[in-house]
Amino acid sequence: MHKVDLNCDMGESFGLYELGNDEEMMQYITSANIACGFHGGDPHVMRKTVELAKRYGVGIGAHPAFPDLLGFGRRYMTCTAAEVKDYVTYQLGALREFAVAANIKIQHCKPHGALYMKAMEDKALARAILEAIAEVDQQTVIFALNNSAVLEEAKKMGIPVAREAYADREHTTTGSIILTRKGSQIKDYHEMAQRVVRMVKEGKVMTHDGEEIAIQADTICIHGDTPGASQLAKTIVEALRENGVQIAPIREVLNVGC
Amino acid sequence: MHKVDLNCDMGESFGLYELGNDEEMMQYITSANIACGFHGGDPHVMRKTVELAKRYGVGIGAHPAFPDLLGFGRRYMTCTAAEVKDYVTYQLGALREFAVAANIKIQHCKPHGALYMKAMEDKALARAILEAIAEVDQQTVIFALNNSAVLEEAKKMGIPVAREAYADREHTTTGSIILTRKGSQIKDYHEMAQRVVRMVKEGKVMTHDGEEIAIQADTICIHGDTPGASQLAKTIVEALRENGVQIAPIREVLNVGC
Amino acid sequence: MHKVDLNCDMGESFGLYELGNDEEMMQYITSANIACGFHGGDPHVMRKTVELAKRYGVGIGAHPAFPDLLGFGRRYMTCTAAEVKDYVTYQLGALREFAVAANIKIQHCKPHGALYMKAMEDKALARAILEAIAEVDQQTVIFALNNSAVLEEAKKMGIPVAREAYADREHTTTGSIILTRKGSQIKDYHEMAQRVVRMVKEGKVMTHDGEEIAIQADTICIHGDTPGASQLAKTIVEALRENGVQIAPIREVLNVGC
Amino acid sequence: MHKVDLNCDMGESFGLYELGNDEEMMQYITSANIACGFHGGDPHVMRKTVELAKRYGVGIGAHPAFPDLLGFGRRYMTCTAAEVKDYVTYQLGALREFAVAANIKIQHCKPHGALYMKAMEDKALARAILEAIAEVDQQTVIFALNNSAVLEEAKKMGIPVAREAYADREHTTTGSIILTRKGSQIKDYHEMAQRVVRMVKEGKVMTHDGEEIAIQADTICIHGDTPGASQLAKTIVEALRENGVQIAPIREVLNVGC
Repeated sequence: MHKVDLNCDMGESFGLYELGNDEEMMQYITSANIACGFHGGDPHVMRKTVELAKRYGVGIGAHPAFPDLLGFGRRYMTCTAAEVKDYVTYQLGALREFAVAANIKIQHCKPHGALYMKAMEDKALARAILEAIAEVDQQTVIFALNNSAVLEEAKKMGIPVAREAYADREHTTTGSIILTRKGSQIKDYHEMAQRVVRMVKEGKVMTHDGEEIAIQADTICIHGDTPGASQLAKTIVEALRENGVQIAPIREVLNVGC
Repeated sequence: MHKVDLNCDMGESFGLYELGNDEEMMQYITSANIACGFHGGDPHVMRKTVELAKRYGVGIGAHPAFPDLLGFGRRYMTCTAAEVKDYVTYQLGALREFAVAANIKIQHCKPHGALYMKAMEDKALARAILEAIAEVDQQTVIFALNNSAVLEEAKKMGIPVAREAYADREHTTTGSIILTRKGSQIKDYHEMAQRVVRMVKEGKVMTHDGEEIAIQADTICIHGDTPGASQLAKTIVEALRENGVQIAPIREVLNVGC
Repeated sequence: MHKVDLNCDMGESFGLYELGNDEEMMQYITSANIACGFHGGDPHVMRKTVELAKRYGVGIGAHPAFPDLLGFGRRYMTCTAAEVKDYVTYQLGALREFAVAANIKIQHCKPHGALYMKAMEDKALARAILEAIAEVDQQTVIFALNNSAVLEEAKKMGIPVAREAYADREHTTTGSIILTRKGSQIKDYHEMAQRVVRMVKEGKVMTHDGEEIAIQADTICIHGDTPGASQLAKTIVEALRENGVQIAPIREVLNVGC
Repeated sequence: MHKVDLNCDMGESFGLYELGNDEEMMQYITSANIACGFHGGDPHVMRKTVELAKRYGVGIGAHPAFPDLLGFGRRYMTCTAAEVKDYVTYQLGALREFAVAANIKIQHCKPHGALYMKAMEDKALARAILEAIAEVDQQTVIFALNNSAVLEEAKKMGIPVAREAYADREHTTTGSIILTRKGSQIKDYHEMAQRVVRMVKEGKVMTHDGEEIAIQADTICIHGDTPGASQLAKTIVEALRENGVQIAPIREVLNVGC
């Protein structure tokens, strides 16, 4: 039977500023990527988000980023690998403390924005992130694109890795995605949902320029900050179930223990 | 036999900016209060400082502060108790991750600057800090002034508490200290060292206005950012030893396990 | 004929985070208090907001704050008067550059949040803000509460001062306001509008505990971040006009040149 | 007669953190590049530095940077040209307010660190910076490397441009420099001073890999944060004078009015 995890960025509000519909999204997903204060999120938001995920039985993950609140972590910064490793350790730790306080465990780590995109193609950056994870908990699942440096290095290091595909972003022929701020989103929910079903069951997706590529989707990302995100999530969940796909925690999808 | 712990603020450099003489001070102290990025310190500095403390066998503690890098955490901010609790959890967690990565444990927590001073007299703030600590590790030692709200609340909550006195700051008749940026320091190292010996052995100190008060000193704070700090530390260590006082880790001073 | 200026906080969005309905509010007000990046706002938002105000013919003012983005400038910080003066100069200058680029002038200055509230009762803080203003442009109008230190000091220094009352906050018997994050707002738009009319025409307002006090309202503040703010603004504008009050730029209300 | 301007980065201290020997350097230079709070500097430091420059009769310039205090502005960030323009406007304005308060004018603008290096080769970034300058004061001198995009675009836009060479960094065959954090500095002061004299009088310099290139030096940069910087500055000043070169304000060197 096909299984897939659904993930969503969460806890990206900051101070007075609100972003996303976290509580609505929680009812549809199995993995919450929680901002750790570098691109969004703050200590208060982190505690609340961890507790919310716990209440909905959603696995939590760190969503570390470059230190760029003004740019929401979407701008690449030429940090050294050592700097990135330290930033990831810091953010992982901050989140872990809230997790321990809530008596739950960190399940996964998904780098955010520009850090995610860059690490996928840069081996040194990929390793920096993976080393920060491995130093504290080798069982943490890392989320990575198909054919990425992160995927490859995680395998070498024995860190469980989930191949990620996107519900609401276009894929390229290399298996990467087009992570623009605006556009590149497919507009029709049902079309998006069918695409997700096909990625999960057939391992195939049509790229933005019309080529069919092979893709493996252990987890599907749905962005929560677009209007109608929870409607999209609902549509995807229903389409997956109708097509006999089980929505399951990532450890179960990957068949790794905790 | 009299025992006392010596503590010093550490890891307060930030990016290109350097502060303090951490490595020099490490050889004299038993407890390092490590900045967690809110008033000073950054992820890179934190990793380096944790490793430095480990190398010197010095116990590490979190040194959480108000989020005020520009003011070095020395300005009181009217945060709510809930905000303070979340800030402490965040900072404790960030440090703990570096500690776990270095395979050592967080030994203590000492709030920094304005947070320290305010928590000493404000029960709600004191509890906020203590709750953040207790949620994750009830064994963490909290540093507190004599006659303070933190001391009282820690006792109620069963958190081990170390009474702190200052080598280089003036004490008031209430057992508090005068934590000015400049001045209020006794200038003569030997005079300071003798004052420390007397606090530890006789439990007495002369206040800034010439009154003798009772004081209990489980740990002595020496500031590392003043010129000649390591010379002062050396003088204190020698004076304590000459007077038969053992410099010991705070758990041993308090006679609590880890 | 009675005249009054209407002001609203503007440009408080930050990076990806959006706040307020600036464009909707612009059509009803005569003075925009523009955030300068310390509690909200960023360089991009500032340029956009200055241009928006220009397009609507709305006077612009600096809205300087304590350096506390996380707390949205609503937490008092024990900064020195010299620090506050420097912060105000910095923020005024940043805004002025965008104003010059748009070929308009800064009309006024209204301190934000905790800085506003504290300066109203603290003479040293009041003078710090006024000195920062006066050093560059003595003609800048300062907004101040009735019976406040800012009002008094501005008069002494010969800086034009606008007495401010609030449409959507409760007043106290001293002429101060209750600036809570939530609550203390009158709920009925028409009731609020009638209260505004009465403040302007009769110089009287009922305090939150039911006492009638004298109040002078050269400018009325309407908060733009509450739901329905533009509806409230519209209702106030209509009520004022129906009651023969002219909504006019603050310089015209105060009868000072530019 | 040969004339040259000498410039140095100034006002890069932040809060409690001190950097550079500003007062020592002021006696040797003619142009101070003043940090504006994005990579270093803060409102208090800016006021002090402006006043210091005024006291020594040194021309002041804005030293705008990417918003990256943690990385001291030395990390390139993939900001859009529009973002960079807004950042420069903001920083220029903040500094200009302190200048006006001190009754002096901004003489020049020199982008800092990664912004400087990137703008030299990126036309869009170069224009973004130049547009921010030109919108407010077309007379502001921009500092640029030989053969750079900034130099070319400034000429097109009619903005006075000073060609800059470095006393303490290695030049490349393209006229660029090697701006590493460490190394690449020539170690001998007299050798550096002779190199400066040759750049100014003969328009030639030996690159880091031993090739002689043509270079035009209207202004020479001396870094102030290296140990012995003021000794180096003194040596350069003496060598220039001994060789008949006049150290002059950049407007005089360029022969443009103010």
